[in-house]
Amino acid sequence: MLQDTNVITNGIITQDALLNHWQGHRRVTRRLIEAFPEDQLFNYSIGGMRPFADMVKEILGLSGIGIRGIVTGNWTPTAELDYRAGNSAAKTKAELLLLWDQVTAELNALWLQIPHERFHEVVKAFGEYEGYSTDIILYWIDNEIHHRAQGYVYLRALGIEPPAFWNRD
Amino acid sequence: MLQDTNVITNGIITQDALLNHWQGHRRVTRRLIEAFPEDQLFNYSIGGMRPFADMVKEILGLSGIGIRGIVTGNWTPTAELDYRAGNSAAKTKAELLLLWDQVTAELNALWLQIPHERFHEVVKAFGEYEGYSTDIILYWIDNEIHHRAQGYVYLRALGIEPPAFWNRD
Repeated sequence: MLQDTNVITNGIITQDALLNHWQGHRRVTRRLIEAFPEDQLFNYSIGGMRPFADMVKEILGLSGIGIRGIVTGNWTPTAELDYRAGNSAAKTKAELLLLWDQVTAELNALWLQIPHERFHEVVKAFGEYEGYSTDIILYWIDNEIHHRAQGYVYLRALGIEPPAFWNRD
Repeated sequence: MLQDTNVITNGIITQDALLNHWQGHRRVTRRLIEAFPEDQLFNYSIGGMRPFADMVKEILGLSGIGIRGIVTGNWTPTAELDYRAGNSAAKTKAELLLLWDQVTAELNALWLQIPHERFHEVVKAFGEYEGYSTDIILYWIDNEIHHRAQGYVYLRALGIEPPAFWNRD
């Protein structure tokens, strides 16, 4: 790992590319939220796992509050965005999608404000998770892919064809 | 995206870091394979989806043949490794784990042979999927996270506690 140097001379992924990668995944997740019937989004579960809406709230909280934290150092959740799903106020699919689109716009805007060296600095995300910013952000993306894939299984179990995983447009 | 330049001057992820990231995920997936009872690994399914063993075969094929392709340009599958799961000969959990460990070692060895500029070159993975090498590799990792998460749901539905997602050691 060369994440502990301030200047990476042999980088293979740029700051711009990582944002594109993240937003591409976020477009897929948005389509998955849309594909869920309202009731099942908030209530359907397999094996005692959380309903997909709660996973979406976690993803929204990590992404939305997380990007603010990376830029400002302030990791305080809001009533709408909190990675602890039970604390999020969103109650309908429309509210989740609205929050989703707000985070999309904020992520694009705040990303431009991240100084390049921040990616190689250690942060304590949400006051709890310490790591290099790049690794923390990759974790959020991985966590989104992970929970979204569980939503894919829920949809399949409900007899609904999910959106294509490979289509990031 | 600056993937089309041969030299990235503002990279945030290095070649070494991407391998560590990938192998960290692969350690989680290996623990998931181990956690499955033999029979359910090859037969259990939800919503008409593939058994987890078939997803593992796809992951093994993409990773094992894929890394050879990135290094040598030869994307030919073998009897053991083929991303088209139905073509893989593995029939037991022990065989899958053996293949897994072979790919782990080969990935480490071949990664060192990837010239830095290769990451910014366009390849036609498996003769079908065209893209920058970095994006192709990220896709394989994403695909692994995606299908592994579906395995998490299978395990939960079977009443088995899966390994921690966050532990990449």
